[in-house]
Amino acid sequence: MDIPVDADRLRADIEANAAFGDVDADEGRGRTVLCGSDANRRARERFVDGLEDAGLDVTIDAVGNIAGTWTPDSADPDADPVAAGSHLDSVPEGGIFDGPLGAYAALEAVRAMQDAGVDPARPVEVVSFTEEEGQRFADGLLGSSVAVGERSAEEALALTDDEGTTLESALDGIGFRGEGVLDASEWDAWYELHVEQDTTLERAGVPVGVVTTITGITHCEVEIEGEANHAGATSMGERTDALAAAAEFVLDVESAANDVVGASSESAVGTVGSLTVSPNATNVVPGRVEAGVDVRDVEYGSMETIVAAARDSLDRLERERGVEADLSRPFDLTPTPMSDRLRAAAHDAGEAAGIDTVDLHSGAAHDTMYVADVTDAALLFAPSRGGISHNSREWTDWDDCAAATRVMAGAMADVATE
Amino acid sequence: MDIPVDADRLRADIEANAAFGDVDADEGRGRTVLCGSDANRRARERFVDGLEDAGLDVTIDAVGNIAGTWTPDSADPDADPVAAGSHLDSVPEGGIFDGPLGAYAALEAVRAMQDAGVDPARPVEVVSFTEEEGQRFADGLLGSSVAVGERSAEEALALTDDEGTTLESALDGIGFRGEGVLDASEWDAWYELHVEQDTTLERAGVPVGVVTTITGITHCEVEIEGEANHAGATSMGERTDALAAAAEFVLDVESAANDVVGASSESAVGTVGSLTVSPNATNVVPGRVEAGVDVRDVEYGSMETIVAAARDSLDRLERERGVEADLSRPFDLTPTPMSDRLRAAAHDAGEAAGIDTVDLHSGAAHDTMYVADVTDAALLFAPSRGGISHNSREWTDWDDCAAATRVMAGAMADVATE
Repeated sequence: MDIPVDADRLRADIEANAAFGDVDADEGRGRTVLCGSDANRRARERFVDGLEDAGLDVTIDAVGNIAGTWTPDSADPDADPVAAGSHLDSVPEGGIFDGPLGAYAALEAVRAMQDAGVDPARPVEVVSFTEEEGQRFADGLLGSSVAVGERSAEEALALTDDEGTTLESALDGIGFRGEGVLDASEWDAWYELHVEQDTTLERAGVPVGVVTTITGITHCEVEIEGEANHAGATSMGERTDALAAAAEFVLDVESAANDVVGASSESAVGTVGSLTVSPNATNVVPGRVEAGVDVRDVEYGSMETIVAAARDSLDRLERERGVEADLSRPFDLTPTPMSDRLRAAAHDAGEAAGIDTVDLHSGAAHDTMYVADVTDAALLFAPSRGGISHNSREWTDWDDCAAATRVMAGAMADVATE
Repeated sequence: MDIPVDADRLRADIEANAAFGDVDADEGRGRTVLCGSDANRRARERFVDGLEDAGLDVTIDAVGNIAGTWTPDSADPDADPVAAGSHLDSVPEGGIFDGPLGAYAALEAVRAMQDAGVDPARPVEVVSFTEEEGQRFADGLLGSSVAVGERSAEEALALTDDEGTTLESALDGIGFRGEGVLDASEWDAWYELHVEQDTTLERAGVPVGVVTTITGITHCEVEIEGEANHAGATSMGERTDALAAAAEFVLDVESAANDVVGASSESAVGTVGSLTVSPNATNVVPGRVEAGVDVRDVEYGSMETIVAAARDSLDRLERERGVEADLSRPFDLTPTPMSDRLRAAAHDAGEAAGIDTVDLHSGAAHDTMYVADVTDAALLFAPSRGGISHNSREWTDWDDCAAATRVMAGAMADVATE
């Protein structure tokens, strides 16, 4: 189905939202909207106003997830709703599209269906999840983890930020601690529109991506223990330099990922993103290094190959350099395939609207990853200029925002009227 | 000449000094004595008391350098004095010998000469330099840099710590900002006894080392700029990973130093001691790395070889990985040979006392490095157990402390009576 959207209305929403927590950026337009901050309160309040203006019935759950439900006369109020949305929080000095595009696109989809006189058979729900970015509480995807039963509301509310403030008290402080828990398993379908944060769409010149699989993610924490020593008084042969060992490890992880890309799975990535050296003084041979490794792919087997190579690297460094090394794996999520039914509806909607769509995978995690555990879910992408994200230079052309929203609105209308 | 020393008196001094700023260490015995701290005040006051108890005439100069002068009747008060000493400050949680051994050994040498009835022709001066470690103000060797005219007292006093406190105000606060400037160029000779901080003496089973050359030191600051990007959404082929580039750089510096050691100069060392990654998050491809490189050798040519290899490495990484790299060299000191005359006197004193001595180089910088620019200077080492230093596990056997002090006392007596 083709549901034309109001591009100006969508743009006005995203631009108004961008003013909350806006930062003075050298280039582009940035915002800092941490969960529970005053900027987050203002963004939430404006979003709730928008839902209510469109006639939606708004609820706030115990962890601050916002849901607005449209139940037109045509709909069976007891039918499982079609839901869509994203998040309003950001990383520090993040972009204005990551999150808000999906939240306001879902609202715009409902308004566009109303304008087009669509008569859904099911209620339509517009959602904003709490603390997707995980910048203040926990590791991310917090609101969706509660909505799918992965974590209890009590557990989430007890989480603390660096200052010891609980999520409960932060939500109380902004007036967004509600009652009950949003239950994603009751949804018939879930759509999320997000910026791609990569260049596949830009390079293909296509405005809308339909995600086939969200990659699995493993995080490894690595500790390499050598011996701190005076950089001048300790001859080269007497050293157990933890940083030199870590340097080999960084390159081994990179090679392992490149090997998998060359051999079996182009989407595989392996990153040593963090590295902390102790004592980290120019004139001291490094005694200890802690590193954080991120491994992702659409195939779990290739993730396992990269992690195994990381372990082999550490074993070799223990033998060859005399360091002690340890690898733990605190975070491991298998790849998540998206719903064939919802993907087909998105491609159909693109065809009906004369908008090109293309299949791709998502290397980034999104709330949709959790939602897909309990119901049919789909993730759509709009192009990111230069693939830049989590940065004030993040940009998606307004035309592309509108095109992707139109495709999502058409797909939602299809699914809701089935 | 053999000048027997009182081993118990020396040990009592070092142990009493170790109580100032003592830390609760898991192993060994540590202290934190930052320049201008209360612990530093107490250490200084006890040292001054010791000098005065031995009949020395104490002066404090504008930057807090302490000097006690013994002018016996036998001495021409206008003759250039023989000076000796070291420092009382420490790194955070440093050892109890690094600095205090040399300061109190110099005092003990004077007391031992007095006990032995030596009649020096020259005054003998016992010195403790301010802020040798450079942990609070500037980079180290601060008091000696002023005493040799490398830096003015005004410039030194204006230096600030991380909180913006000036050296001037810190010295005022502990009552150790005096007047005038200690002038090392007026000394006929300078001896410093220090712990080796390496294992040459331990492995040789010799209690006293006589330094031939203090290695030169170059510090390089390196910046590698890549592009920060989402670790999941950025495929391996699209990355400009600053940490992967820095990892190659770390290994290139290590290889270059090992090559020089194998080819021409065993004493050469090259260390990447510090490495700071931005944004340093597990799920972000590193966008920027800053690294600190330390290069030392007794031959300046081999230092140049290692720095050239570091530059070549960065050039290659710019070409091959597309990063932007920059190397600056804010600190560069050429190797400093010690005085043949004073070295010979030390070996002679060892022979007279029946104590083995051996030639070695110093990979660590010491105040003596500056003093050697303006007068004859010598540096003696006592063994460090396991080469460990800047650590509560730093240890030198009391017998070795006494033996090295006896050699220094004999050498000073020789030179002072010449």
